[in-house]
Amino acid sequence: MTAEQKKREIAVVILAAGQGSRMKSDLPKVLHKVGAVPLVGHALATARSLDPARVVVVAGHGAEMVTQAVARLDKDAEIALQAEQLGTGHAVAQALPMLEGFEGRVIVLYGDTPFIGTATLTSLAQHESDVVVLGFEAADPGRYGRLVTDADGTLQQIVEFKDADDATRAIRLCNSGVMAMDASLLRQFISRIGNDNAAGEYYLTDIPGLARAEGHNAAVVTCEEAETLGVNSRAELARAEAIFQARRRVEALEEGVTLTAPETVFFALDTHIGRDAIIGPNVVFGPAVTVESGAEILAFCHLEGCHVSSGATVGPFARLRPGTELGGDVHVGNFVEIKNAVLDEGVKVGHLTYLGDAHIGERTNIGAGTVTCNYDGVMKHRTEIGANAFIGSDTMLVAPVTVGDGAMTASGSVITENVPADGLGLGRARQTNKPGLARRIMQSLREQKAKKGKG
Amino acid sequence: MTAEQKKREIAVVILAAGQGSRMKSDLPKVLHKVGAVPLVGHALATARSLDPARVVVVAGHGAEMVTQAVARLDKDAEIALQAEQLGTGHAVAQALPMLEGFEGRVIVLYGDTPFIGTATLTSLAQHESDVVVLGFEAADPGRYGRLVTDADGTLQQIVEFKDADDATRAIRLCNSGVMAMDASLLRQFISRIGNDNAAGEYYLTDIPGLARAEGHNAAVVTCEEAETLGVNSRAELARAEAIFQARRRVEALEEGVTLTAPETVFFALDTHIGRDAIIGPNVVFGPAVTVESGAEILAFCHLEGCHVSSGATVGPFARLRPGTELGGDVHVGNFVEIKNAVLDEGVKVGHLTYLGDAHIGERTNIGAGTVTCNYDGVMKHRTEIGANAFIGSDTMLVAPVTVGDGAMTASGSVITENVPADGLGLGRARQTNKPGLARRIMQSLREQKAKKGKG
Amino acid sequence: MTAEQKKREIAVVILAAGQGSRMKSDLPKVLHKVGAVPLVGHALATARSLDPARVVVVAGHGAEMVTQAVARLDKDAEIALQAEQLGTGHAVAQALPMLEGFEGRVIVLYGDTPFIGTATLTSLAQHESDVVVLGFEAADPGRYGRLVTDADGTLQQIVEFKDADDATRAIRLCNSGVMAMDASLLRQFISRIGNDNAAGEYYLTDIPGLARAEGHNAAVVTCEEAETLGVNSRAELARAEAIFQARRRVEALEEGVTLTAPETVFFALDTHIGRDAIIGPNVVFGPAVTVESGAEILAFCHLEGCHVSSGATVGPFARLRPGTELGGDVHVGNFVEIKNAVLDEGVKVGHLTYLGDAHIGERTNIGAGTVTCNYDGVMKHRTEIGANAFIGSDTMLVAPVTVGDGAMTASGSVITENVPADGLGLGRARQTNKPGLARRIMQSLREQKAKKGKG
Repeated sequence: MTAEQKKREIAVVILAAGQGSRMKSDLPKVLHKVGAVPLVGHALATARSLDPARVVVVAGHGAEMVTQAVARLDKDAEIALQAEQLGTGHAVAQALPMLEGFEGRVIVLYGDTPFIGTATLTSLAQHESDVVVLGFEAADPGRYGRLVTDADGTLQQIVEFKDADDATRAIRLCNSGVMAMDASLLRQFISRIGNDNAAGEYYLTDIPGLARAEGHNAAVVTCEEAETLGVNSRAELARAEAIFQARRRVEALEEGVTLTAPETVFFALDTHIGRDAIIGPNVVFGPAVTVESGAEILAFCHLEGCHVSSGATVGPFARLRPGTELGGDVHVGNFVEIKNAVLDEGVKVGHLTYLGDAHIGERTNIGAGTVTCNYDGVMKHRTEIGANAFIGSDTMLVAPVTVGDGAMTASGSVITENVPADGLGLGRARQTNKPGLARRIMQSLREQKAKKGKG
Repeated sequence: MTAEQKKREIAVVILAAGQGSRMKSDLPKVLHKVGAVPLVGHALATARSLDPARVVVVAGHGAEMVTQAVARLDKDAEIALQAEQLGTGHAVAQALPMLEGFEGRVIVLYGDTPFIGTATLTSLAQHESDVVVLGFEAADPGRYGRLVTDADGTLQQIVEFKDADDATRAIRLCNSGVMAMDASLLRQFISRIGNDNAAGEYYLTDIPGLARAEGHNAAVVTCEEAETLGVNSRAELARAEAIFQARRRVEALEEGVTLTAPETVFFALDTHIGRDAIIGPNVVFGPAVTVESGAEILAFCHLEGCHVSSGATVGPFARLRPGTELGGDVHVGNFVEIKNAVLDEGVKVGHLTYLGDAHIGERTNIGAGTVTCNYDGVMKHRTEIGANAFIGSDTMLVAPVTVGDGAMTASGSVITENVPADGLGLGRARQTNKPGLARRIMQSLREQKAKKGKG
Repeated sequence: MTAEQKKREIAVVILAAGQGSRMKSDLPKVLHKVGAVPLVGHALATARSLDPARVVVVAGHGAEMVTQAVARLDKDAEIALQAEQLGTGHAVAQALPMLEGFEGRVIVLYGDTPFIGTATLTSLAQHESDVVVLGFEAADPGRYGRLVTDADGTLQQIVEFKDADDATRAIRLCNSGVMAMDASLLRQFISRIGNDNAAGEYYLTDIPGLARAEGHNAAVVTCEEAETLGVNSRAELARAEAIFQARRRVEALEEGVTLTAPETVFFALDTHIGRDAIIGPNVVFGPAVTVESGAEILAFCHLEGCHVSSGATVGPFARLRPGTELGGDVHVGNFVEIKNAVLDEGVKVGHLTYLGDAHIGERTNIGAGTVTCNYDGVMKHRTEIGANAFIGSDTMLVAPVTVGDGAMTASGSVITENVPADGLGLGRARQTNKPGLARRIMQSLREQKAKKGKG
C-alpha cells in the first residue's frame, strides 16, 4: 500500500431506500430514531468521520421524508432516488451519476446499520485490495450470506445463504453488506450484475466474485458482530437503542461523570457531559445538550438543545428546551420549563415557572408561578429582565416587556409595561377581608348541594 | 369427543379466599395488583374469555373487600363465602350452591394465579376426559404436588409432595391446581373428600384419584410453567408484575409501537396502543388508556382512563386522569394535568395547567398557568370553552363558567362570569410603576435582617 | 475467649485519605455517594453499629472537605490528618495520637468500602487471636493480596500479589485489608513496618507477619466477597449503588412493602417504609424519609427529609423536601412541591402548588396554583393556615401571613394581610367583558404579522 493509496479520496454511498415492512410503520425505516437521531443520521455521522469527498444517500420508500431528514442532518449529503427497489446493486447504480468524475474509493454503507465504527471504516477505506468486504464472525451465522475465502484469507466470493451448500453454510465468516472498491471498478462491474435469482433483484454482493473472476483481488476486513447490527423491527430498534445507551453510559462513567443509576439515563448521539458532573436517576437527554463539568442534573429531568454551565443545578422535574443557556451557578428547580432563554450567572428559578424567549440578568430571582407570556395568539415576543431583579411569585410578564436591573415586580402582578431599573412594578387589587363570609358561603353551598341531592 | 361435548357450557370457580400471610398485608392477597388490576381481575378476565355461563368467586379472608372488588371488575360474577379456610375442596364446596342447575363443565381457577392463558383453559374445557388436571413440567419440581400418570399418559392420581415416595418425587410433571370436570361429577365427589391429613384440610386434589377408583377416566393437560406462576409474597408480586410488563412490551413492539426504552414503560391489563405510536422513556399507563396510531407520548407521563387521538402529543411530565379525551393533533405539554375533560382537535395546552371537568373547543389555546377552578369546597362544576379561543396565561376559570368561540381572556384574569363569543374577558388591576421603590424595599429588608442578626 | 475479652472496648480507624485518581474527580473518593450518603458515611454507620469507644477517620486528599463531611455525618468521630499518602501503615500511624490511653481492640476499616456488615465486624472484634484479618474467597483472586495460612487455619502472613510465587498465587483466600488487633500490639508493630518495597510505602499488611514472627497468633475471619467491594472508579461507584439498591429493594419487599417496579425505586441509607405502603414506579428517596404503613407514593416522586403518615397519598410528580410532615390521609397531588411544612390530617393539595415554611391545619383544601411567597429577596417567612380553610386557586400567600380556621381566600387573590377565622380574603379586580374585542385584537395581530412578513 503506497502513501498515495492511503490518502485516496473517499465517497460514501448510504443505502436508505428500504421499506422496512417488519417495522409496521408509515415512517421509512431509516428515519426511526436511536439516541434521538434517525438511523440514517448515525450512518451519515460515521461517513463524515472519514472526511469523505462525497456522500450520497439512496432514498426510495418515503423518499420525500428521507430527503428532508438528510437535508437537516447533513447539508452536504446528496440524494439519489431509487424509484423501484430492485436490490442493492440497483440501489448503488442510482448513486453513480452523483459520483461522476470521482476517482477515489467508494464505500457502501446502510442507513439501518447504526453502529459501524470509524476505525472499522478506516481499515476498509485504506485496504489495498481492489474490492474489500466487511465481514464478521457470527455467533449464530443463521441465514447470513457467507464469505468464502482462500487459504490466504483473500475473498473468493459472497454466497447467499439460500444458494449455499452445507460446506459453505458451515462457514462462520458472514457478510455485513458493507463494501469498498475503487469508483472505476464499481462503474465497470455494477452494470454486469444480473438479476437471475429468486427475488429477481440485483445484488451488490455479486461484485467480489465477478471482480475476482477477471483477475482483481478481493479481501475481507472483519469487525465485531455487534457493529453490524441492523434494525428491521421495533424490537431490534429497541435493542439498538439499548446498545447505544449502554455504550454511552460506560463512556460517561469512564470520563468521570457520576451517573447514580446509569441504566435510567438516556443520551442522544451528541450529548456532551463534563467530568464531575452528577446526573441523577431518570434523566433524558434529547439532541444537542452540553452539561459542563461540575453541574448537577437531579432526577426526572428532560433536556434538549441546551447548555448547562459549571455549578448549575437543574431539577428534579425540570425541562430545558432548545435555546436554553444556563450560566454558572444557575439554579433551576422543580416544575420549571425553559425555552430559548439565556439565564446569566447565579439566576434562581425555583418552582412552577415557564420562561420562554427571554434573557435574565445575573443573580435575578424568579418567583414561583412566573410565566413569560410570550405568545399573543399570533406572534412570539421577548422578555428582558435585568440583573439583581426580583420577580415576585405569580408574575405574568406580557411580552414584549423589559424589567430593569434591580427592579422588582409585586407578587400576582401582570406586567404589561416596562419596569424601570430599581423600580417596583405593581398590578394587583388591594386585599379586603369579609368577616364571616367564608362561613356563610360554605353553608350556602352545602344547602345547595343538599337541595340538589333531593331534587 | 362429540361436537356436543365441545360446545358444553362452562362454569368457572375462582378460589380467592386465602389470606396470603407471606404478603404481610392487611389487603387480601387477590386484591394486590399486577398491571394495575387486582390479581383476581386477571383470573376473572381469563375466565370471561371462555364465555362461561357462570363465574363464581370464593371469598374468605377480607371477603367484604374481595366482594366489592369483584363487583367492580365483573358485575356478573357471583360470590360464595368460605367462612373458614378448610382447604381447596371445602372452598369449591362453598361454590356449589351457585352452580345449582348447572350441568356443564366446571373449571377451578385460582385468584392468585394471573397468567393462565385462554388457549390453555380452552384445551382443558374441551378435553373429553371426566376429570382433567392442568400440569406442567417444572424446572425445579421442589415441593409441588406430582401428577402420577399411566404409560398412556392418563392420570392416576395427584400426590402431595409430603406424601410422595422417592420414585414419585422423581416425577417432574407437577400439579398446577387448576382442574376441570363435569358439574355432576364434582357434586358427586366433593363430599367424599376427607380431611385425614396433617393440615386437617379438604384437598380438591383428591378428586382425580377418587374418580379414577370408580372407573372414571382422568387426564392431564399441560402448559408452560410460567403460566402457573402464583403470587405468595411481595417479591413474587413484583416478579409477576415484571413478567406481565415484559410480555406487554414485546406485544407492543410486535404491533408496531415504538418504545424507546421498553423496560421503562408500564402497561395496564387493558392498555391499547396503536401502530406507529411513539412512547418515550418512563411512561406509566394506569387502567383504561387508549392511544391511537401515530400519537406520541413523551417521557415522564402518567395516563389513566383516557383516550389520545392520532397526531396528539403528550408530555413530557403530563398527567392525564380518567375522563380525558384528546382529539386529533391536540398538544399537551409539561406539568399539565387533565381530568374528566374533552379537548377537541388541535387544542394546545402547553404548560403548568390544570383542566378538570371541562370541554375545550377546536384549536383553542390555553395559556400557561391556567386553572379550571372546578371545586368550590363542596361541589364540582364544569367549564365550557369554545373553539378558537385564547385563554391568557394564569387565567382562573371559576366554574361553572363558559367562554365563547373566538373569545379571549386577559392574562392574570379571574373569570367568574361567562365571556361571550369574540369578547375579551378581563379581570385585573392596571400596572403602576413605583420608581426607586424596589431599591428602597431591598435596603430596608437588608437592614431588618442585619438588626435581627444582632437582636 | 474469656467474657472479659468479649466485652473489650473497640476503636475503629477508618482510612479515608486516598485520592481515588481513577474517579477522575475533584471530590475526594470517600465523599462520592451511594444511597444518598458519602461512602465514608457507610463506613461510619457500620463502625457505630459496634458501639465503639472511639472512631477516628484518617483524612488526606481533600482533607478539609472530608473533615466537614465527617462532622455532618458523625459528630463524635475524630479526624487524623495524613499529609502525605505513604501507605496504609503510615495512615494508621497518624491515628495513634487519637487513640492515646485506649487499651481495647482497634479495627481498621476503609472509607471506600461501604458494604462490610455488622455481623462480620463483630466476629472480627470478638475473635480471641492477637491479630485478625478479614479475608474472602475470591471468585477471581486476580491481583489481590493472598492470605497464607497454616494447616489449622491460623494466619502466617499476607503476601502482596507482586511478591507472591506461583504457589501463593494459587491461594484463593484474599486480603480485604480490614484488620483487628489490640491497641498495644498496634502501637508496638506500627513503627516497625518498613517501606522497602516498589512503591516505597508502609503497608499495614506487614503486621500479621511481624507479629507472628514474635510469637503472637494471627487468624483469619472470612466474609462474602461482595462485602469487601471497594469503589475506585465511577463504574464501580455505579455498581456499588446498584448493589445497595438491590439489597434495599429486597428488604422492602420482605418487610411487606409493595414496589410495583422495584428496579425503578431508589432508596437512601436511612429510608424507612412501613408494611403495606405502596410505592409506584420511579420513586427516588433522598436522605431521611419515613413513609408509614399504608401510605401510597405514586409514580415519579422525589422525597427527602420528610415524614408521610398512614393513609396519605403522594404524587404522581410530587416533590417533598426536607422538613415536610404529612399527617394522616393527607393528599398531595401532581406538580406539588412542599418544603419545611407541616400538613395536618386530611389536608388536600392537589395541583401545581408550592408550600414552603408553612403549617396547614386539618382538612384544609389548597387550590391549584397556590404559592406561599416565603422569600422576600432577603429573608424567609412563615405562612400559617388554620383548619377547614379553603385556599382558592392561584392564591399568593405573602408571608408572614396567617389565614384563620374556616377562612377562605378568593381565587386569584394576593393575600398580604391576615385573614380572620371564617372570613373571606379577597384581592382581585372585578371582571369586565369587552364585546368583540378579542376578534379585533386577533385581526390586528394578524395584520401586524403580515406587515412584518413584508417588512
